Amino acid sequence: MMQNRTHTCGELRLSDAGKQVKISGWMENVRVVSANLAFVVVRDFYGTTQVVAETEDMVNTFKGITKESTISVEGAVRERDSKTDKMATGDIEIVPAKVEVLGRCQHSELPFQINRSREADEAQRLKYRYLDLRNPAVKKNIILRCNVVAALRKSMTEHGFLEITTPILTASSPEGARDYLVPARNHPGKFYALPQAPQQFKQLLMTSGFDRYFQIAPCFRDEDARADRSPGEFYQLDMEMAFASQEDVFAVLEDVLPPIFAQYGTYDRASSAPFTRIPYNEAMENYGSDKPDLRIDLRVQDVTAVLGGCGFEPFAEGNLVKAVKVSDFHETRKFIDKTLADVETVSGGKAYWFRMDENGELVGGISKFVNLIKEKVVEALSLKANDFVALSAGKRDAALKTAGVLVKTLGAAVPGHMDKEQYAFCWIVDFPMYEIGDESGELEFCHNPFSMPAGGLDVLLKAERGEIDPLTITADQYDLVCNGVELSSGAVRNHDPEIMIKAFELVRLGEEDVKAKFPAMYNAFTYGAPPHAGIAPGVDRMVMLLAGEDSIREIIPFPMNKNAQDVMMSAPSEVTQKQLDELHIQITKHEE
Amino acid sequence: MMQNRTHTCGELRLSDAGKQVKISGWMENVRVVSANLAFVVVRDFYGTTQVVAETEDMVNTFKGITKESTISVEGAVRERDSKTDKMATGDIEIVPAKVEVLGRCQHSELPFQINRSREADEAQRLKYRYLDLRNPAVKKNIILRCNVVAALRKSMTEHGFLEITTPILTASSPEGARDYLVPARNHPGKFYALPQAPQQFKQLLMTSGFDRYFQIAPCFRDEDARADRSPGEFYQLDMEMAFASQEDVFAVLEDVLPPIFAQYGTYDRASSAPFTRIPYNEAMENYGSDKPDLRIDLRVQDVTAVLGGCGFEPFAEGNLVKAVKVSDFHETRKFIDKTLADVETVSGGKAYWFRMDENGELVGGISKFVNLIKEKVVEALSLKANDFVALSAGKRDAALKTAGVLVKTLGAAVPGHMDKEQYAFCWIVDFPMYEIGDESGELEFCHNPFSMPAGGLDVLLKAERGEIDPLTITADQYDLVCNGVELSSGAVRNHDPEIMIKAFELVRLGEEDVKAKFPAMYNAFTYGAPPHAGIAPGVDRMVMLLAGEDSIREIIPFPMNKNAQDVMMSAPSEVTQKQLDELHIQITKHEE
Repeated sequence: MMQNRTHTCGELRLSDAGKQVKISGWMENVRVVSANLAFVVVRDFYGTTQVVAETEDMVNTFKGITKESTISVEGAVRERDSKTDKMATGDIEIVPAKVEVLGRCQHSELPFQINRSREADEAQRLKYRYLDLRNPAVKKNIILRCNVVAALRKSMTEHGFLEITTPILTASSPEGARDYLVPARNHPGKFYALPQAPQQFKQLLMTSGFDRYFQIAPCFRDEDARADRSPGEFYQLDMEMAFASQEDVFAVLEDVLPPIFAQYGTYDRASSAPFTRIPYNEAMENYGSDKPDLRIDLRVQDVTAVLGGCGFEPFAEGNLVKAVKVSDFHETRKFIDKTLADVETVSGGKAYWFRMDENGELVGGISKFVNLIKEKVVEALSLKANDFVALSAGKRDAALKTAGVLVKTLGAAVPGHMDKEQYAFCWIVDFPMYEIGDESGELEFCHNPFSMPAGGLDVLLKAERGEIDPLTITADQYDLVCNGVELSSGAVRNHDPEIMIKAFELVRLGEEDVKAKFPAMYNAFTYGAPPHAGIAPGVDRMVMLLAGEDSIREIIPFPMNKNAQDVMMSAPSEVTQKQLDELHIQITKHEE
Repeated sequence: MMQNRTHTCGELRLSDAGKQVKISGWMENVRVVSANLAFVVVRDFYGTTQVVAETEDMVNTFKGITKESTISVEGAVRERDSKTDKMATGDIEIVPAKVEVLGRCQHSELPFQINRSREADEAQRLKYRYLDLRNPAVKKNIILRCNVVAALRKSMTEHGFLEITTPILTASSPEGARDYLVPARNHPGKFYALPQAPQQFKQLLMTSGFDRYFQIAPCFRDEDARADRSPGEFYQLDMEMAFASQEDVFAVLEDVLPPIFAQYGTYDRASSAPFTRIPYNEAMENYGSDKPDLRIDLRVQDVTAVLGGCGFEPFAEGNLVKAVKVSDFHETRKFIDKTLADVETVSGGKAYWFRMDENGELVGGISKFVNLIKEKVVEALSLKANDFVALSAGKRDAALKTAGVLVKTLGAAVPGHMDKEQYAFCWIVDFPMYEIGDESGELEFCHNPFSMPAGGLDVLLKAERGEIDPLTITADQYDLVCNGVELSSGAVRNHDPEIMIKAFELVRLGEEDVKAKFPAMYNAFTYGAPPHAGIAPGVDRMVMLLAGEDSIREIIPFPMNKNAQDVMMSAPSEVTQKQLDELHIQITKHEE
């Protein structure tokens, strides 16, 4: 008999009737019916089992045990009279011969009811996380996370990737987010930093001759909390491949992710390979977003040429006008007003509308302007009866942003435009390498200066010679997007110091600037680096998508609160003067 | 074609002869035989392949490439004239049609020769770790580590354990080793600590209703480096089971570890279940160590009663005398002197000897004293011709320590007494709960105050009432030992606040002291905790045993040096005043 039981609390079935068994678990509930009849629910990790006390002695025994104490129950399994589907063991009950208290709960009142802990105040839940986690509805998300991580590991290993653990105590990075620092006792005045990501280490592994690396990697950024990011630590499925192109990375994730999403997700359907590839500029033009939700069938259309001169003032003055057409639209005026108001709140830009009624008339919203050029508009948008047209206007970025929010909001709200119950993946590709800086008015890096420019050194030399516009250079960089959520950015890395320097020279920087950013990596690359590419999808975001949870704290076993405190463990906390002395630091300000 | 190649450098065989292929890798070597003949070795993660340049152009191409540059080679596979077993691809070579440099090595001189990097200065190896790791002999240990960790994960998962990740930014512990501290930006004057082990979290998981937990857990202790411990971070196979006893934990590891040790170790043989269990006191008496190496057939015998009065002064004065008999001993006097001198250096205690020669005479060492009571000694030790007897004397602990070192040293050095090529596991059990403190002269905890005393509350109450000697109380605590190396301590935890308080009261402490140590855990236990037990074998130590390496730096991808510095990344390093200001700290001393 293992673990003080013959069976778990989720295991007994009708076929076990008649067996002598022993279970152990938490006494979840006692319902006393009479002096010699009580129903007891015992819960463990695997489920719950009903125990029926049928003697006065046994009823008194259970009455004397506080709820949430751990107990063991030995007795006979019996078929239930009134079976239930609500629990897996609902066909049977145990008639106890012996009951033992293993760990007494000393409290007759709990801070919240275990099975309704999700309704409790978050501060209480986090302080008593060990009670909150006893709630199967809370625990299941943690189990999901563990299973997803195990499945990712298994699949990556099967794809020939080696999980290599990189250092957690390392060097502060000169850029990126804020580092967590750790004073070095033996090196007064110096600090380790916790890694924001193992980016440099994985590129060093490639330069060291490793071929297919991955790691469920802890990452640390000292940033304030967001809905989808915990303060402190978070995890990435970090991966990198030597001698690899963008397509090599795509092929791996297109093979690894969909089965895991379909198996563990709220929805059992996921994109199959190859995922749709959408160039960045096309995504912006067609979806008004570089994080399109492909479950939605709405698209952005440019109607500047058609509507620019209709007389409606926001459409004039060189503004761009973007339209999102929604067919089969039968919503109320109230719906329209509320939805567009929501869009404005999210996007920060005004949204306009008109629609074609069942008689083919353009009505509502700005229809009086549109009606002046009705024929042209109907043709340009191929309008039919019951088509609804939402519009945005402004400079390119602003107009597209509002149009993008229109797509996602209307797609989700208007029936028939979103095939919701699936995980729809896409790759956003061909990101521009350079842009004209808003402030400087000069050429600047657009995203990551360390991605490989498509076309390599040749393209940069052409731009330098003025043969091509540097704004047309794209980087071999890519985003993985699922259901409108960006899971990760990745890139073919620039592994060649010569190309790095040239890329920097185009923005009036040079070798010293390259070296200053990542000295170890730059040095390593001068010793012969392989071309390499990778990506690092966020584990927390993936699990949130799979669990269908909006708060990151629902998918972490022991999360910090929004103020970056662990109220259960009392972290952060004060330390002794001796500790500070050993670390050669002193405190300049104390929390009140 | 994946990853810029049709085949890896370890893949091509005779059956591939005639194929057109492409490989990519590092140009390890060029041996120019003549103007139109050169042999080139290309290396990647998977192996090496020979390329033969047979034209003047091609020879010149290779001559123009610096060694350790990354290249791709396209060409035809051909059967070799002179095959070699030294490489897996030794039956073939590639005749190149096209060669491309992918990443140029800019240095004609390397800090050390790649394939002889293990002979280089350690500081150089760590600074250029990305070159050191290109050496297959260095890389293989890292691959071994990754494979062992993956195998441990797989096996634990198959045993129903869930890998749960616990926080890295957490609270400082009041005891144990020194914590690494992390200043909390939003909580001036307060600090997070990196966990020394997830001990509290795993016990909280048990109290939260999880059943079988494990984690390849990063642990952090700000202690100086040792041969078998890296400064900074190290990893444990941390595990815990609810409603579990010592035997439950044993059964899991006895099933998980031996196949992994046999598969990945230097030796292909490992103990099968059940491992030998040796009570702590018995281990000390019989092996002079609580880390016995069961591959050795030598034992310690107490010969105080026999030799105490022989007239040899160190044996007198109430000292204990311990003997280690080695049969079939044919070593030289020089060997004896050197070996016993080594033992004294390690143990800090003197070792003595005599032996029975082939004629049955007691000779050498202290034989003149022993000969006075020859008959008694021969009988007590069952001496036969060619038996060697090593001896130690002193107070119990000192005499046993020296005897233990004699066992391990003589066992390893004298032929025939060590069945070396295996992994011999044992459990050390029944550790005493209490001892009389050397300084206090009063009852104190012996090892871990939070282990469950065998017999629970009843035994403590008996001791309190004076019915039993508290020194006879054992704890349900255990060590896992393999080949004389302690892999881990584990225990059945004391999950019951009432028993905890009683255990503390016996050493004149109380509830406040219990609470002060682990407030979160103590609080949690008052809400009903399951009995639970666990252990946490050190991953680094296991991999060192399997790799047969003596330095921990050989089994870590990017190790720190002995001064807790990463010389490649320049960690720890100075940070900006802005960073210090944000963290509300200042530096009181600067490294020179």
